[in-house]
Amino acid sequence: MASVSERLAILREELRRERLGAFIFPTSDPHNSEYTADHWKGREWISGFNGSAGTAVVTLTSAALWTDSRYFIAAEEQLKGTEYQLMKLKVEGTPTVGEWISRECGAGAEVAIDGMVSSANSVKELIADLRRHGGITLRTNFDPLARIWQGRPPLPSNPVEIHSLAYAGESCHEKIARIRKTLRDEHADGMLMTALDDIAWTLNLRGSDVHCNPVFVSYLLISSTSATLYINKVKLTSEVETYLKAEGVGVASYEDVKKGLKDYFEYNILLDPDEVNYTLYKQVSCEIVEAESPVKLLKAVKNEQEIAGFRSAMLKDGIALVKFLKWLRPAVEAGGQTELSVSEKLASLRAQQPLFCDLSFDTIAGYEAHGAIVHYEATSETDIPLKPEGFLLLDSGAQYLDGTTDITRTIALGPLTEEQKRVYTLVLKGHIQIELCKFPAGTSGTQLDVLARQALWREGLNYLHGTGHGVGSYLNVHEGPHQIRMEWRPAPLVAGMTVTDEPGIYLEGRFGVRIENTLLVAPCCKTEFGQFLQFESLTLCPIDTAPIIANLLSFEEITWLNDYHQYVFDTLSSHLASDEAVWLRDACAPLAL
Amino acid sequence: MASVSERLAILREELRRERLGAFIFPTSDPHNSEYTADHWKGREWISGFNGSAGTAVVTLTSAALWTDSRYFIAAEEQLKGTEYQLMKLKVEGTPTVGEWISRECGAGAEVAIDGMVSSANSVKELIADLRRHGGITLRTNFDPLARIWQGRPPLPSNPVEIHSLAYAGESCHEKIARIRKTLRDEHADGMLMTALDDIAWTLNLRGSDVHCNPVFVSYLLISSTSATLYINKVKLTSEVETYLKAEGVGVASYEDVKKGLKDYFEYNILLDPDEVNYTLYKQVSCEIVEAESPVKLLKAVKNEQEIAGFRSAMLKDGIALVKFLKWLRPAVEAGGQTELSVSEKLASLRAQQPLFCDLSFDTIAGYEAHGAIVHYEATSETDIPLKPEGFLLLDSGAQYLDGTTDITRTIALGPLTEEQKRVYTLVLKGHIQIELCKFPAGTSGTQLDVLARQALWREGLNYLHGTGHGVGSYLNVHEGPHQIRMEWRPAPLVAGMTVTDEPGIYLEGRFGVRIENTLLVAPCCKTEFGQFLQFESLTLCPIDTAPIIANLLSFEEITWLNDYHQYVFDTLSSHLASDEAVWLRDACAPLAL
Repeated sequence: MASVSERLAILREELRRERLGAFIFPTSDPHNSEYTADHWKGREWISGFNGSAGTAVVTLTSAALWTDSRYFIAAEEQLKGTEYQLMKLKVEGTPTVGEWISRECGAGAEVAIDGMVSSANSVKELIADLRRHGGITLRTNFDPLARIWQGRPPLPSNPVEIHSLAYAGESCHEKIARIRKTLRDEHADGMLMTALDDIAWTLNLRGSDVHCNPVFVSYLLISSTSATLYINKVKLTSEVETYLKAEGVGVASYEDVKKGLKDYFEYNILLDPDEVNYTLYKQVSCEIVEAESPVKLLKAVKNEQEIAGFRSAMLKDGIALVKFLKWLRPAVEAGGQTELSVSEKLASLRAQQPLFCDLSFDTIAGYEAHGAIVHYEATSETDIPLKPEGFLLLDSGAQYLDGTTDITRTIALGPLTEEQKRVYTLVLKGHIQIELCKFPAGTSGTQLDVLARQALWREGLNYLHGTGHGVGSYLNVHEGPHQIRMEWRPAPLVAGMTVTDEPGIYLEGRFGVRIENTLLVAPCCKTEFGQFLQFESLTLCPIDTAPIIANLLSFEEITWLNDYHQYVFDTLSSHLASDEAVWLRDACAPLAL
Repeated sequence: MASVSERLAILREELRRERLGAFIFPTSDPHNSEYTADHWKGREWISGFNGSAGTAVVTLTSAALWTDSRYFIAAEEQLKGTEYQLMKLKVEGTPTVGEWISRECGAGAEVAIDGMVSSANSVKELIADLRRHGGITLRTNFDPLARIWQGRPPLPSNPVEIHSLAYAGESCHEKIARIRKTLRDEHADGMLMTALDDIAWTLNLRGSDVHCNPVFVSYLLISSTSATLYINKVKLTSEVETYLKAEGVGVASYEDVKKGLKDYFEYNILLDPDEVNYTLYKQVSCEIVEAESPVKLLKAVKNEQEIAGFRSAMLKDGIALVKFLKWLRPAVEAGGQTELSVSEKLASLRAQQPLFCDLSFDTIAGYEAHGAIVHYEATSETDIPLKPEGFLLLDSGAQYLDGTTDITRTIALGPLTEEQKRVYTLVLKGHIQIELCKFPAGTSGTQLDVLARQALWREGLNYLHGTGHGVGSYLNVHEGPHQIRMEWRPAPLVAGMTVTDEPGIYLEGRFGVRIENTLLVAPCCKTEFGQFLQFESLTLCPIDTAPIIANLLSFEEITWLNDYHQYVFDTLSSHLASDEAVWLRDACAPLAL
C-alpha cells in the first residue's frame, strides 16, 4: 500500500498536468452522508486521517487538514510524520480554507474540488471564500481519485431489504403522499431526495452500504405524479422490485439521475442546497425551490409503532448492558481486559438479543486519558489494558430491526480522584437538568442547551460538542433536523422526536466523562400559555452512582436519579436471571435524600 | 381634532387620487428609532393606537393594525369603536401584511409606503411578501401625511448639548478613529450612521428630540478622511459648532444628506440595511457593504468612566427608590393614592437627585389586573386607586448625566393570594438564575434565556417578551446589539456590556409580576476552556421579600438574595436618613436558609 507521501506525489502530478494549484477533499459523498461508503473515503486515503469530519487540501508544495475539536487529538496522532499541517476549526488564528489556499497558491490560482461530493451550499460558500482571498477560481468537474486511487473500493452493491410495516408503522405510498402534501404546502411540484436515510425511510427499505448505517446508495426523484429510485439494479431482489412497483415507485439506474433531472417536466423542484451535491444542483434547468428537505421533519417525528419499537430495542439493549456491567468490574479486577476486549464483550451480548442487526456506530471505549479523546476508537495500536481504578468512558449503540440505540456511561473501575468525582457529578447534573426540563412547543434545542452546561460553566468547564442529536428508527444514529447544541438550529423539538442528552467533560491527558441517554419528546400539559413538552428517557441502564458527590446534587436531581433507577429496575428485572436482577437492584439503589 | 374615521376618510381621498389600493404606516422614523419624535407618529395619528410597535394598513374599504403581544390588550382598548381590525403578531391564523392586502385589494393592486420611515430590509421584505401574494407592487416615494395631517408637529429643533468627557470617557475623535479602524477591518471605506443614539454616542452630544431619549435628529456620514453631521443648524449653539470643528466633524443641513450620499467619493460605503431607511439606501451609487453598524458594539461595551457613571446613577436611583418604597405602603394604607400619583411621587424623588435629567421611559405602574398589561401606561382615563392588597408592578427608570437606569419591582401592597405568591417566587427564581449564571466568552443572550424561564416553564407558565436588553449610558434605555431572548440574536455578551434581567408573568385580568435589575457583564475566570464571564447587578434596590414562598427557592437562590440585600444595604445605608436606613435594614433582612 502506498504511503501518504507517495499518494501526495501522484496527486501532485495530476495537479500539474491539469494546471491546478490545489485540490480540496471534503469528507462526504454524493449524498452528503456523515458516514460514507468506503468508495468515497478519498479524504482518508489522501491524508491517513480517519475521523468522520475534516477537509484535506493539497497544494503542489504543502498539505493541510481542517477538523473540529472532537478530533484534535486523534488527528494530531494520525498526521504525525506526514507533511499535513493540522488546522483546528473554531480555534483562534486558524485560517479558512480560502485564506490558506490564497497564502499557499498566490492570487489568481485555479484550484479544484469534486462537485459530486460536496453540497451545493458548501461549494457556493467555498467559491465566495476563494474569490474574496486573492481572486482564486474553483473548478468543480475534476475527480483525480478516479485515476490515481489504486485499489479504490467499488461502489457498494449490497442487496436492499424490505423494512417491515410492523416496525415502520406507515407504508411507503402513505409516506410519499405525505411528502407530496408537504411539497404542495411549499409550492413545490417535486423534489430530488439525496440523503440516504431519507430515501430508506421513505421507501421502507434498508441496506448495508455504509458501516453501521442501514442505508443503500441511491437517489429518489419525486414529482407530483411519479417517484423514481435511481439505484444499481443489482441491489434489488425480485421481491423488492415487486414491492416497489406495488408502492408506485419506478426504478432507473444510479448513473441516470442526471438524465432524470434533465427530463423532469414540472415547473419547479425542491432541492435542499445543504444536501444536494453541487454537480446535480447545477444540472437542474427548471425553477429551484431552495428549502430544507421536508423529509427530515417527517422522519424525525416517530409514529406509534416506531416508538413501541424504540421501547423494545431499549429493553433489549438494557438487558445486554446489565449483563455487561455486572461482568465488567470483576473481569477488570481479574485482569487481562482491554478497551477492545470489553467492546467486543458488549457487542457479543448485544448480538444475542432478538432482532439485533449491527452496532449503530463503532464503540468508543476510552480508558482514563483515552476518555478525553472525544471520538476515540480503540485500535490494536492504541488499545490499553484496563486497571481496577479510574474511569472507562463507554459510548455504544446497536441497530435492531425495531429501533436504534445510543448510550454513554462513564464507569468507575475502582478508586477515583476527587476531581474525577467532582467532574462526574457536574456532568450528571447537566444530564439531569435536560431530563427534567419542560418547554413550550416551538422551542428549539439551542434554547435548552445551556441547561446541560450551566453547572459546568459555573466551574469554568465546558465541552465543545453538541448536547444532543436525533436518533433514527433502525436508521442512522445521527439524524436531524433538530439538535440540542450551542450553535443556532431553529428546528423546534416536536412530540415524537428522539434526541440524545449527552453532556461531557474532557480533560486532555487525564480523563473524560460523558453520560448519555436517548430521550423521547412527549407532551406535558396545555395551559393558557399553550402546549408544553417534556422528555422521557427511553434508555434503560443504571447510571454509575459510585462517583457521585451527593451534596453537589439538588433534591430534585437526586429524586430524578432515584426515580429513573427505580424505573430501570422495574422494567428490566423480570427479563434478567436472578443474579443479574440482584446486581441491578444494587446498581439501582436510591441515593439518600 | 379630527376623529380616526375622519382621518381615514381624508387618507382614502388621497389614495383614490393616487390610484393606490392601500397605504402602510409602520412605527418608525427616518432613523429606525424605537421611539420617535412626534413629527413621525403617523401610525398613531391614523389609528389612534399609541403603542411603541405596530403597523397600520388602510385600504379604500378596510383598516387593520398589527402589533405584538405586549400591546394586545392596550390595542384592543384603543381601537375599540374604530374600523381597525386588530392583527395579533405571532398568533396562529394572523395573516401577514402581504396576505391581508392581497385579500383586501385583489391581485395586481398598487399600494404604498413612505420609504423614508422604513428600513431598507423591511421594505425589501415587504416588496417580496406583496409580490408573492397576488403580484402586488409597492410604491415607496409617497407620503400622504405631508398633505393630510393637519397640525402635524414640526421637525424637532431642540438644542444639542455637549456630553462631558468626564462621563463619556472617550473623546469624539478617538471614537471616530476606532470606528474607522473597524470599518477598515470590514473592508469598508466609510459609513452612513442613521441611528440617533449611535450618532449621539459617537459625537459625545446629547439632545431632547425624542421623549425620554436624549438624542437629536441628524445623520452622520463618515468617510476615510472626513465626518459630516447632517442636522438642522438651528440646533447647534456656537459652543457646539466650535466643539465639532475641533473634533474634526463638519456640519451640513439635515435635508442635504441625500446630496452628501451622492457626492460621497470613496469606493464603497457600509450601510446597515436593518437601520438605514429605504429611500436613502436607494440613493447610494457606490458599492454597498451590508453589515450591522459597527457602532452598536462599540457603544454597548462601556468604558471605565461609563461604568463608574452607571454605579453613581444606580446609587442615586437606589436612594430615590428606598425613599419611595418606605413611603409607599403607609401612603396606600392612608388612602387616596393611584397608579398615576405614585408614579409622580417616584419621579419627584428621582428629580431631587444630582445630575437628574429626565425619566428614561414612561413609568409603568400597573395595579393588579393592570399589571398584566405588559406595556401599560396609566392615563387619567385608566388610572385606578391603590388598595392595601395585591400587587403593584412598577417599571421605571431615569436619565442622569452619568447613566441611565431601568428597574422593575413588583410590590405587595398588602395581603396576596397563594397564586400571587407562587408566581412571584417562580419569577424571582428565573431572575436569580440569570444573576447567578456564568458562561464562556462568545455566548449570546439567546443561549442563556432559558435560565430565566425554566422554573416558569416547569409550571406551564411563560412570558412572550425578551428577558433582557442593553441599556445606554445617558442614552436610550433599549440598545443592542445583544439581547437575552428566545429568538436568535447572535451578538455575544461582552465584558463591559449592560443588560437587563427581567422575567415576568402576566395573567390577563388578574395580575402581573416582573422583577428587573440592570446587570453588568464582567470577567469571571480563565480556565483551560477559555475566558468565562458572569453578571454583576448594578441596580441597588431591595426586592420585596413579603411575597416569597421560601421553600420554592433553592439554597443558592436564597443565598444570592441575602447577599444581594446585604450589598444593597451596605451601599445605600450611609446615604440615607436614619429612619430610611432602618426601613432598608428591615427590607434587606435575610431569609432563613
